[in-house]
Amino acid sequence: MSEAVRDKLVFVAVDWGTSNLRVSLLDEDGAILAKRQSDRGMAQLSREEFEPALLDLIGSDLPANKVTPVMCCGMVGSRQGWAEARYVSVPCNAPSGELATRVQSKDARIATWILPGVQQVGPDDVMRGEETQIAGFLAQNPKFDGVVCLPGTHTKWVRVSAEEIVSFQTFMTGELFALLSKESVLRHSVETEDFDQSVFLNAVSDAMSRPQSIAAKLFGIRAAHLVSDQSLTHAKSSLSGYLVGLELAGSRPYWLGMDIALIGAPALCEIYQDGLKAQGCLAKSYSAEDMTLAGLKAAFEQVKETI
Amino acid sequence: MSEAVRDKLVFVAVDWGTSNLRVSLLDEDGAILAKRQSDRGMAQLSREEFEPALLDLIGSDLPANKVTPVMCCGMVGSRQGWAEARYVSVPCNAPSGELATRVQSKDARIATWILPGVQQVGPDDVMRGEETQIAGFLAQNPKFDGVVCLPGTHTKWVRVSAEEIVSFQTFMTGELFALLSKESVLRHSVETEDFDQSVFLNAVSDAMSRPQSIAAKLFGIRAAHLVSDQSLTHAKSSLSGYLVGLELAGSRPYWLGMDIALIGAPALCEIYQDGLKAQGCLAKSYSAEDMTLAGLKAAFEQVKETI
Repeated sequence: MSEAVRDKLVFVAVDWGTSNLRVSLLDEDGAILAKRQSDRGMAQLSREEFEPALLDLIGSDLPANKVTPVMCCGMVGSRQGWAEARYVSVPCNAPSGELATRVQSKDARIATWILPGVQQVGPDDVMRGEETQIAGFLAQNPKFDGVVCLPGTHTKWVRVSAEEIVSFQTFMTGELFALLSKESVLRHSVETEDFDQSVFLNAVSDAMSRPQSIAAKLFGIRAAHLVSDQSLTHAKSSLSGYLVGLELAGSRPYWLGMDIALIGAPALCEIYQDGLKAQGCLAKSYSAEDMTLAGLKAAFEQVKETI
Repeated sequence: MSEAVRDKLVFVAVDWGTSNLRVSLLDEDGAILAKRQSDRGMAQLSREEFEPALLDLIGSDLPANKVTPVMCCGMVGSRQGWAEARYVSVPCNAPSGELATRVQSKDARIATWILPGVQQVGPDDVMRGEETQIAGFLAQNPKFDGVVCLPGTHTKWVRVSAEEIVSFQTFMTGELFALLSKESVLRHSVETEDFDQSVFLNAVSDAMSRPQSIAAKLFGIRAAHLVSDQSLTHAKSSLSGYLVGLELAGSRPYWLGMDIALIGAPALCEIYQDGLKAQGCLAKSYSAEDMTLAGLKAAFEQVKETI
């Protein structure tokens, strides 16, 4: 297997986030020869551990007699990462390969780059990784004019026009959901994987009409469990709906009347799509994995002459 | 010391919450002979461990030849507590000693009661412990007509009129603050004990005017740390202000135009007092410890004939 990959390998695309490392090995047509992944995300690695963590996944795939380009995006470029990659300030194009930071790797078989993040000064905001998904999306949809929403731990709403990232705003929705469902007094009330869409949509609407009451609505989930024996499914769907509704209320200036593209994990995109549809907005969904790969490939095309 | 207490001990007042056990030993005039406390809160005890945890604190203080009454309030009366004490439904008086649940203790030197909690059906809500603080407050302020706010992990806003608890609403503000400052991506941005009141008040006002953006404001604390090198003090004061402001926006129907009494830890009451003052509302503060003790003493007076 490794030998078959080694003969055709031209480029390594790396999505290196806080918690995970995801690698795609590509041939000269950009087709995927193999995918590898591990849980050795940025958060658990010291600076010297990044190269070994990468080589653990791809070392046996690398041809010995040439230099294989490796293009990375994500938190690997943060101050706590492999090497600090700059932030480009909005308004800007989704950062191209020419702006990537070259990393000094010890293994002579690889030439490694990390793509920049994007920042906004006033209101301050940052992204690392999402800009590469946007680059991939724009490579496939160059005429897009509207808003790109990237739901996740820190959901981004991004205004895109004339191939530029114009402005953006990050909501801590996913992290709040994780903290509340795993660490808070609500954790025993929401212990289920089941989901009730109509409960979810009612909660979205409820939070959108009274966002100021969110901290009371959250405790209400616990209280309804104690007082009215509310089901775990009802509780979990409400929690999700309250937090997504709160975000939709806050991001309204972004999405109202705009073309909306969602880029994320399919299940999460579907939740946002449902919430937006209830507000009369149709959003199209795109896979985060596909868009990241498209963005890394576009960046590779921009630097491959320089290797 | 224990001997001096033992000779005069008439009543044991117990405030037993999720995280802590606080005991006051009182003489026949209701004066405090001694206070004891431990971190053996409800959350870490199985049913059989409650009596030993209490006796560890007061066993050597108990006279051998008589039965000493012990009155408890708080999460000790929850389903996971020593014994489940009922909930009384609003509208109701702050529960009196007659409604307390008698606990079967093994040690014959104590007669133990747990005071009820209070519940509200639709919108569902619950309290355990705060009702005893309210009872203590009303024992000292029987004519009070207005709203009692009890800031804490789960802050309660309680309408009180004609010595009755009319309705109430709980906000998860304190727990959100703890989760965000200790477990979230913000934790490194708010690692300080310092506090800037003007930053706090700006954040209160900001959250009150745009509560729907709270999840974005929260991430903004992290972004401002990265982009603008915002100080830890600024970040921590903002976090506090955003969450208190969100709560004040949601609880406005409670406090607007009302007499307000705050019952809580003095430092926390001061924060709420400042936030309310900026909205033109003057609130008086009372110590939670004092009000709890007053409520437990009042309940003891109601049952002591029955021992």
